[in-house]
Amino acid sequence: MWTENRVTKLLDIEMPIVQAPMAGFSTLPMALAVAGAGGLGSMACAAMAPEALEELLAAVQVPEAGALNLNFFVHQTPPGDAAKDQAWLTRLKPWYEAEGQAPPEHLSPDILTPFGEEECAVLERATPRVASFHFGLPSSKLTGRLKAAGWKIISSATTLEEALWLEDHGCDIVIAQGLEAGGHRGMFLTTDTAAQKGIMALVPQIIDAVNVPVIAAGGIGDGRGIAAAFALGASGVQLGTAFLHTHEARMSQLQYAAMSGDANPVTALTNVLSGRPARAVVNRAIKELGPLTEDAPPFPKALGAIGPIKQAAESKGRADFSAHYCGQAAYLGCRTGAAQLVRDLSAAALALMP
Amino acid sequence: MWTENRVTKLLDIEMPIVQAPMAGFSTLPMALAVAGAGGLGSMACAAMAPEALEELLAAVQVPEAGALNLNFFVHQTPPGDAAKDQAWLTRLKPWYEAEGQAPPEHLSPDILTPFGEEECAVLERATPRVASFHFGLPSSKLTGRLKAAGWKIISSATTLEEALWLEDHGCDIVIAQGLEAGGHRGMFLTTDTAAQKGIMALVPQIIDAVNVPVIAAGGIGDGRGIAAAFALGASGVQLGTAFLHTHEARMSQLQYAAMSGDANPVTALTNVLSGRPARAVVNRAIKELGPLTEDAPPFPKALGAIGPIKQAAESKGRADFSAHYCGQAAYLGCRTGAAQLVRDLSAAALALMP
Repeated sequence: MWTENRVTKLLDIEMPIVQAPMAGFSTLPMALAVAGAGGLGSMACAAMAPEALEELLAAVQVPEAGALNLNFFVHQTPPGDAAKDQAWLTRLKPWYEAEGQAPPEHLSPDILTPFGEEECAVLERATPRVASFHFGLPSSKLTGRLKAAGWKIISSATTLEEALWLEDHGCDIVIAQGLEAGGHRGMFLTTDTAAQKGIMALVPQIIDAVNVPVIAAGGIGDGRGIAAAFALGASGVQLGTAFLHTHEARMSQLQYAAMSGDANPVTALTNVLSGRPARAVVNRAIKELGPLTEDAPPFPKALGAIGPIKQAAESKGRADFSAHYCGQAAYLGCRTGAAQLVRDLSAAALALMP
Repeated sequence: MWTENRVTKLLDIEMPIVQAPMAGFSTLPMALAVAGAGGLGSMACAAMAPEALEELLAAVQVPEAGALNLNFFVHQTPPGDAAKDQAWLTRLKPWYEAEGQAPPEHLSPDILTPFGEEECAVLERATPRVASFHFGLPSSKLTGRLKAAGWKIISSATTLEEALWLEDHGCDIVIAQGLEAGGHRGMFLTTDTAAQKGIMALVPQIIDAVNVPVIAAGGIGDGRGIAAAFALGASGVQLGTAFLHTHEARMSQLQYAAMSGDANPVTALTNVLSGRPARAVVNRAIKELGPLTEDAPPFPKALGAIGPIKQAAESKGRADFSAHYCGQAAYLGCRTGAAQLVRDLSAAALALMP
């Protein structure tokens, strides 16, 4: 059930532990360490240009690389709404002044582009691996091309409806993302954050409804959480925050302190940092602008709005505007290597499982 | 571990399943059925006058009654704020007019009174059982008297800090209430609903921090959820919504339909129904007033504000203003007897546990 199940077989891994892709914070060494230990290592490729993607794929084009997952965003590029953008920038203006920065003149919807034709072509030319998507799936045409090229397709569901949609659109595995999870909610058929479910309620519901295997994500931080997810019926688990604590994570001192400083960081779902709901450590921006507001420009434009003051404040050692994404079980994190973490998690989970 | 653990021993029960007290919806036959089957049956006594409480205790004063829990609210009676109350009533005025009802002239803070001296005296005269509290604990003096009289004391924590506080103030068992749970959040040291945790992240955190046994609550609907809670380290589980589906529940047709009609009711945390955050099926009142707003008069005054139009609408078959409390795993409910449910849950959980 642990080393031989639908997820391990489908992904050709030794143990059904997925290291979550975390744009900006996960690294290639982390993914390789996880893959080397027998799990699925993930690379966050959402912000990569096709050339960089090509290079990355070339770098891991060796048999020893193990099982790797490339993650992309498939958000809709938002329509222009200059009035809304300017109103938001006006709201941030006092902070810009205090940080001695000039606000951008306008907010670009293109600072993060969704997975498209070019990325698909790069993947088609490479050895097929696992491609995971956030905020839904690419067009059926692109998904079909990836599958034809031998890629396995994964995406996250935050509701029953999203899980059914993903299965219907060709997903090989569905990640049930409980609201405990750090980072961006994968939600794509709903914008109703109030109705998002905890993993305890979401996982059995999705498992009972779909035929594809289900990976549980959100609030899992040690062997207990993994054993619990398997008791709920999951065939795999995805952990993000636990890997933020590993040596391989790209974490600033500031972020590490925010996440583990008092061992019990307060997090909330907020859309003020990027324009989409994401769980992050509560800071000044989240408190004073949100946590959730309809005034925030749509993803990814809000990223550009807060970016300059975020960097300015961080350079002075303040996390006032930082996006310190983090799940609800950050307190369980411990400083170790990513490969060791996979082995420790596996052993701890096995000891608790029937 | 299942029939012989810290919770079963402390409460003298055969299996560590607690039927949640649900004011207005749980019944004495339900509690007796659960107790008869070997679990802990709970009676919601928050709205009972001391005389009624005395009668209830006399009625169950037989050895065959089994393990029973009496539940009380220990909220702070809110201070007067006539301007806020009137502003709220003004907001509800169009609904009052549409329902042909006259709004109350003012909102009373006394429609639900907290556990106090009189209730304590009634309990002291009865055979000691289990007393559970919501929104904290009574004064140390009253808690001390109950404990001296042999009562076991339970309360709910929604954060690590609340769990530590409850243990420090004499709780024999702490219920870790995940945000999946239906009904009122037990929160009493915080008002920050955005930071409330799912059971997956909350239960291990509380277990690692307190010495008293922990019962997990929230989103548990079948044997899988129970096995998961035990994998997380819980010594017992509390289920509410699952028992709303039993024959013994006091449920209107309307409420049963809201909870199980489309098998996937949308719930949200809202404070517009009572003045305190509670999880309920989303309806017109929640959508148009909330789900969460600082404008709602404090608990229990908001109950009185919405009461008359709620009753009027319900008499016409509409749930527009109803308080259909319900957890996130309502979809797992099945129509059965309360005793049978306890036996089924126990068997299903055991089959999944190591």
